[in-house]
Amino acid sequence: VCVIGLGLIGGSLLRAARRSGRTAWGATLSTADAQAATLDGYRVEDTVDTALAEALRQNAIVVIAVPLPAVDGVLERVAAVAPGCLLSDVVSVKAPVVDSVRRIAPRTRYAGGHPMAGAAESGWSAGTAMLFDGAAWVVTVEEDTDPAAWRAAAELAIDCGAHVVPAGATEHDMAVARVSHLPHVLAAVLAATGAEGGPLAMALAAGSFADGTRVAGTRADLVLAMCEGNREQLLAAVDDALGKLGAARGALASTGSLRATVAAGNLGRAALIRQRTTTRTERRIDLAAPNALGELRGLGAQNGRVIGFDGESAIVELPVL
Amino acid sequence: VCVIGLGLIGGSLLRAARRSGRTAWGATLSTADAQAATLDGYRVEDTVDTALAEALRQNAIVVIAVPLPAVDGVLERVAAVAPGCLLSDVVSVKAPVVDSVRRIAPRTRYAGGHPMAGAAESGWSAGTAMLFDGAAWVVTVEEDTDPAAWRAAAELAIDCGAHVVPAGATEHDMAVARVSHLPHVLAAVLAATGAEGGPLAMALAAGSFADGTRVAGTRADLVLAMCEGNREQLLAAVDDALGKLGAARGALASTGSLRATVAAGNLGRAALIRQRTTTRTERRIDLAAPNALGELRGLGAQNGRVIGFDGESAIVELPVL
Repeated sequence: VCVIGLGLIGGSLLRAARRSGRTAWGATLSTADAQAATLDGYRVEDTVDTALAEALRQNAIVVIAVPLPAVDGVLERVAAVAPGCLLSDVVSVKAPVVDSVRRIAPRTRYAGGHPMAGAAESGWSAGTAMLFDGAAWVVTVEEDTDPAAWRAAAELAIDCGAHVVPAGATEHDMAVARVSHLPHVLAAVLAATGAEGGPLAMALAAGSFADGTRVAGTRADLVLAMCEGNREQLLAAVDDALGKLGAARGALASTGSLRATVAAGNLGRAALIRQRTTTRTERRIDLAAPNALGELRGLGAQNGRVIGFDGESAIVELPVL
Repeated sequence: VCVIGLGLIGGSLLRAARRSGRTAWGATLSTADAQAATLDGYRVEDTVDTALAEALRQNAIVVIAVPLPAVDGVLERVAAVAPGCLLSDVVSVKAPVVDSVRRIAPRTRYAGGHPMAGAAESGWSAGTAMLFDGAAWVVTVEEDTDPAAWRAAAELAIDCGAHVVPAGATEHDMAVARVSHLPHVLAAVLAATGAEGGPLAMALAAGSFADGTRVAGTRADLVLAMCEGNREQLLAAVDDALGKLGAARGALASTGSLRATVAAGNLGRAALIRQRTTTRTERRIDLAAPNALGELRGLGAQNGRVIGFDGESAIVELPVL
């Protein structure tokens, strides 16, 4: 595994890959991260190009773990040094990365990735080999996805302790807008509205406010990179939330009742709990079959996941209906 | 202490009062709560009237711990049986209770209360003597508040393990609209918007969505009683949140930036953390002084709290500026 970018996610990936017994090395433009990783005993190449050249020699998978605005620059080096390599990434938005790969490094065998794990801190020092244990890790499936690239990215995710949720890039971006980016926007709105209540409001804030504003403490540049990179889908999610909040406001003002709002919230929360506690049954998808990728792509929308491989088959778990 | 209503809060109050060495008894219209409390070794009178008559005999403080819609009914019994008693309550909204007391039981010596503690479950069986340990407990100060009633309510709160935040009833209602009721509305909106993303969104939901929707799992009738009882102030808070969310939407759509939203969220969260970690210094307020109540009333707005009494003085903590 060749990891480009050794911040929280890339650094955790390098550690988790080595924990699984893989040969792993990295490169980063951050001197601080490079020094810290080297001190911790990890192999860090001097330049991105030498790291990519090593990937070419070893037929390794290259994983791009830099912020979205830096992706195109890395892709240019990939296209120059290792144009046919197996390629994935861990950027939190997928359609823009898919577009960039098609444009800049079209000969790579690419399947995008997004581990649903994070932490409040950033940089190499915040990372840990356990970051992905038990987490969902999206591996994207598009019409033109190379099955070998998909499997290589999925095997890496599973080796790192995650389970794989296959999904189209746009479907991924729509979903994370609702469950990952909108929560940050609403937490910011709640924190600001609460703080306008002054010291008395802060003195009376209990669990509901503390929980609802926790991610409002995340570093602004991380939140902005994540949310602004998914602008189109986030706008749709914010519009939905605005509609629901406006309806709540209208009902409270007119009938005095929040019953519909609260009932919908109860149902939404129950859907989350159900997803987490559902009983799953195992089956196989033959990856050599003609429609294998189509089957994989539909898995995420059925609350299915890939938990391993057995010869030519993916081992998948699906909820018992 | 005579506690009318033995649900989560009233039941916990009965336990905490006895833990502090006080003589405490209660009454409730709920046969289930009455039986459970009796089985646990607590004294439960057969009727509200006999409990109130005992309060009259012992010059005890009566605490109303029933939902807002049931308060007027209890006040009528108080006015009939123990019209001059020391009176408090633990209802989560204060101005409507103050109004009811003035209207129905004007001869009582009343100071309202609101412990900022709760739990997901309800009823006697969900209660515990520790529920209020370390919590803020508002005791209301109005122009006409009887100083003896205020002190009796505050001493009870402190005996139950809480610290007292003095505030006007309307100031209280404005503050909790922002930090207690709005969080429930936004959690419901987030849960519903997220769940509309279907199984894929639920499969990708991580900490930000789980935290942001936690209170959306609260029983609907509890949320409705709390939020709808504070309609006017909650409307103002929802309008503020709508304005901020609309501004975020506009900025994202036009400039593509959420910087102002995220920065305001960072500041709001920092205000909460600062409130919780500030260094405090102790001083006294002489309760016999002419402006004692005015001084107390201003305390909450300065992030101050009462932590005990010493003779004629309240021991207060104020942030070091």
